[in-house]
Amino acid sequence: MAKNSKLAPLPQRKKAVASLETMRKVFTLPESESSTLSQLDREISENLRGFLQERIVSGDIAPANLEQAFMDTTIPDDPMWVAEQTQFLLDKVVAQSVHTASPRFIGHMTSALPHFMLPLAKIMIALNQNVVKIETSKAFTPLERQVIGMLHRLVYGCDDPFYQTWTQNFNHSLGVLCSGGTIANITGLWVARNQKLGPKPDFAGVAEEGYAKALAAYGYRDAVVLVSKRGHYSIRKACDAIGLGRRQVLKLPIDHHHRIDLGVLEKTLKTMAQEKTLVLAIIGVAGATETGSVDPLDTLADLAQEYGAAFHVDAAWGGPTLFSTKHRGLLKGIERADSVVIDAHKQLYVPMGVGMVLFKDPQALDSVEHHAQYIIRQGSRDIGKHTLEGSRNGMAMLVHSALRIIGRRGYEILIDLGIGKAAHFAKMIRGDGEFELITEPELNLLTYRFVPEKARQLLREVHDSKELTSKCNDILSDLTESIQKRQRQEGKSFVSRTRLEAKAHHSQEVSVFRVVLANPLTTNPILGEILEEQRAYGREIFVSEGFEKALEGLYRTARAMGETGSEAT
Amino acid sequence: MAKNSKLAPLPQRKKAVASLETMRKVFTLPESESSTLSQLDREISENLRGFLQERIVSGDIAPANLEQAFMDTTIPDDPMWVAEQTQFLLDKVVAQSVHTASPRFIGHMTSALPHFMLPLAKIMIALNQNVVKIETSKAFTPLERQVIGMLHRLVYGCDDPFYQTWTQNFNHSLGVLCSGGTIANITGLWVARNQKLGPKPDFAGVAEEGYAKALAAYGYRDAVVLVSKRGHYSIRKACDAIGLGRRQVLKLPIDHHHRIDLGVLEKTLKTMAQEKTLVLAIIGVAGATETGSVDPLDTLADLAQEYGAAFHVDAAWGGPTLFSTKHRGLLKGIERADSVVIDAHKQLYVPMGVGMVLFKDPQALDSVEHHAQYIIRQGSRDIGKHTLEGSRNGMAMLVHSALRIIGRRGYEILIDLGIGKAAHFAKMIRGDGEFELITEPELNLLTYRFVPEKARQLLREVHDSKELTSKCNDILSDLTESIQKRQRQEGKSFVSRTRLEAKAHHSQEVSVFRVVLANPLTTNPILGEILEEQRAYGREIFVSEGFEKALEGLYRTARAMGETGSEAT
Repeated sequence: MAKNSKLAPLPQRKKAVASLETMRKVFTLPESESSTLSQLDREISENLRGFLQERIVSGDIAPANLEQAFMDTTIPDDPMWVAEQTQFLLDKVVAQSVHTASPRFIGHMTSALPHFMLPLAKIMIALNQNVVKIETSKAFTPLERQVIGMLHRLVYGCDDPFYQTWTQNFNHSLGVLCSGGTIANITGLWVARNQKLGPKPDFAGVAEEGYAKALAAYGYRDAVVLVSKRGHYSIRKACDAIGLGRRQVLKLPIDHHHRIDLGVLEKTLKTMAQEKTLVLAIIGVAGATETGSVDPLDTLADLAQEYGAAFHVDAAWGGPTLFSTKHRGLLKGIERADSVVIDAHKQLYVPMGVGMVLFKDPQALDSVEHHAQYIIRQGSRDIGKHTLEGSRNGMAMLVHSALRIIGRRGYEILIDLGIGKAAHFAKMIRGDGEFELITEPELNLLTYRFVPEKARQLLREVHDSKELTSKCNDILSDLTESIQKRQRQEGKSFVSRTRLEAKAHHSQEVSVFRVVLANPLTTNPILGEILEEQRAYGREIFVSEGFEKALEGLYRTARAMGETGSEAT
Repeated sequence: MAKNSKLAPLPQRKKAVASLETMRKVFTLPESESSTLSQLDREISENLRGFLQERIVSGDIAPANLEQAFMDTTIPDDPMWVAEQTQFLLDKVVAQSVHTASPRFIGHMTSALPHFMLPLAKIMIALNQNVVKIETSKAFTPLERQVIGMLHRLVYGCDDPFYQTWTQNFNHSLGVLCSGGTIANITGLWVARNQKLGPKPDFAGVAEEGYAKALAAYGYRDAVVLVSKRGHYSIRKACDAIGLGRRQVLKLPIDHHHRIDLGVLEKTLKTMAQEKTLVLAIIGVAGATETGSVDPLDTLADLAQEYGAAFHVDAAWGGPTLFSTKHRGLLKGIERADSVVIDAHKQLYVPMGVGMVLFKDPQALDSVEHHAQYIIRQGSRDIGKHTLEGSRNGMAMLVHSALRIIGRRGYEILIDLGIGKAAHFAKMIRGDGEFELITEPELNLLTYRFVPEKARQLLREVHDSKELTSKCNDILSDLTESIQKRQRQEGKSFVSRTRLEAKAHHSQEVSVFRVVLANPLTTNPILGEILEEQRAYGREIFVSEGFEKALEGLYRTARAMGETGSEAT
């Protein structure tokens, strides 16, 4: 069925009118499968089936034009038939959405969804539970605690008595589910702050007294968080939010593998100690958003222990690598972290909107416990007492289902598949004269760029001149951006782009294509096709958009400076 | 169909095995309507239809026993058939859930869901968009901005040119959607903090430098937030999170209508000014969680203006009252607020997991703007640059659908219905010798308790003795709690409980039944039945659980103290 297909014409009806009766009807369960709503439901399924077999961006309307369809801010006075709104959604929203599940959509961490999620998500939506309190969730409460226990076990692997004691112990929590990795990182740092600046004999703690008084009470000049420059942007946002300030996130340099520079880290830790600055947390990255790189977690754990800092691991992406017997060693040391973030809507393949943070110490979350009279009372089973969020839906049910329906072995296959595919794609790029691998595959991510032969030659010849190399790289960065934008506009495939230090070129910052290989339906032939598509755009844009000319100009400059003896053609 | 019904037996199959092939199949769209998954999908719909016609808590298993079914934290090695997991969910989760949509579930702010939400939610889940960035959301981005514009217009009612200018202006945002009211309140206070302690010539601002340095740079001794004691518990949580500290939430006394005491507020504002304490925000409550009361927003706006505080309104519950021509006057002044919180999963009847905060100043959210290289770049259309959360799902689509399918008139009918029903229920209680209305209905909330004739008589006689009144109230509070727990256990209906000051009894704090009337299917006869159910439990428990005896003891004490001349029977 085509993406813009019309719904079957409904029986001709008069204009929808709001009345007590129609409003009650809206909330009344349709009696049978033959009701209009049931019919619509089936047609939506058909349409989605169509959409999901289409290209990545089904419409070619520019965003600015698309916005025109969403300008009206008047809430209509009269109601609209469901069929009318559904048709609007199919035309203006579904047809203009991004097919994140496409095997050719390899640019972001939004991948395919197992199809069993659709019927199961219906259960979640229909039950409309609110897990903030047991009175509106009942079975969803122990279910969510079980899910947290399962992931805790994956990360920390404590023994049976531990989980017997803590999994369903409603006075404490082994972690919290939340809407995503950002809230998870905020929660991890919030807990670290409340623990490091907690109550003591002469002070009620930062949670009660606030951050300014807490620093004074503990005699700290300031507090910082240490993370490599590959750390996720949510860390700075978190430190703005919890009152430390963005500048107190010290983004430390990285080594050639994009892992935190341990020498600089240790030096920084010493300086902080001398300056009476609290190191709130050392953050290890386990699967950097841009490069997939994993910090040396074991060493970070040693340093955190030595200097008394909390050790927080952002494994939003890389956490599920623990399912793989072959690759889990990459995350060695994660089990020593005080807190670990994992996103379920990433490599657990659960629908958008669920992440988590797990805590080694079952009592860590006590430091952020909140109560109220009518809800989450002291001693209640309410999960809400340990979460930053309040009301929350039953996404735990979908995580639970994914863990059981896919199983550990299933996840292992998916993880190994992605890492293997990244290695294969890297090999294709290395063996190709017109592409350059910028970062080696780490986990299932890699970055590269298009480098036409002429540029490659120039880069070789001016290698000794940082300035000329930089000029050449700037031209190539513009070229990369043009190719990436063109590819996005064409809508047949999608890779993202970012800016990274290119090790081979004096670690100058260059624009690169960024690829994430988590969709099991992305095959090696598809990767080949994507490369060919980029090559075609690259060759064309190189000439048509003046990049070749710019490069020739640079050649002349280089020759004039005596930096190269070759002739530009 | 019964709630524990079995799914149709599936073709006999061997054990599920994880293989590359099965894992790829999990992500491959089923070909036809006759696939196993499609069959399961239909059966789930049938089962849900069954569940939704059942009682409130379908199972009578005690939570502690229920937890036993969710103890195992081992992630199974082998995969499980979808049908097997579905059967588990139907047996252990659906059958043990709370029927929040029941017309007899009148205890919390989780009400019925319009049934068109189910097919439309399927679109959202299937598309799996991530609105943090336009590359993974496309049409969902302008759609979400439109939804924010629609609600902004409802609250602030600016003119057409204003919305033409700002609704789709991607450098700014009129508000943010988020997972719920708590994140919305946190965002509102985060913005207030970052604006009040923003950058100035000699200081880079609290977002960059942190809260401790910001107080110093501005010469403040401290910062506080003012709200009545009816304010939501998330305010304290927010002030813990953003670094002010919980104690800096000054919970001011209320008048007899549970509205903030304006005299005390003004006195506090004067004191704070003298003490060089920043009043970060005055928070107006528009629909208190416990009583539905609405603060005098217009006066609060005056005071906020006079004293230079931000004016934040928590209208998570009451916001949609603005749809009602008859009742919107109750919220007069809300249009002067700097920020307003509304929960869509409350009175906009959207599935759990979406709230919002709206800002009068289209540039207010600039104060929390964050960027990164690979995402939400400067000048991008990405919504994520203004949100506390990162990755987020497409719930905006469901808010959009509700606003259009129900329409302004539809919401007006729903709001008027709830407020009218609360007035009617209050009348029933007032006219009943065994019940006592504790708080008058405000919006669609009210509180009351069961007071047997004997207790009523005693309360009357000992009215002059605060001590004896208090003792009597304590007995009644225990009785109220017993009745509420019994009612919850029986599972036929549900009211919640809280503790509130009883105006008629020296404003002593007593336990009360709390009722929220937002479900259009809750009829007056149902309310009558709920009252009769409570009366039956009350009469029984009064005798069987020793309350009568305790009351007689109190009578004797009162007589001995000469506080009453009457005879206890």
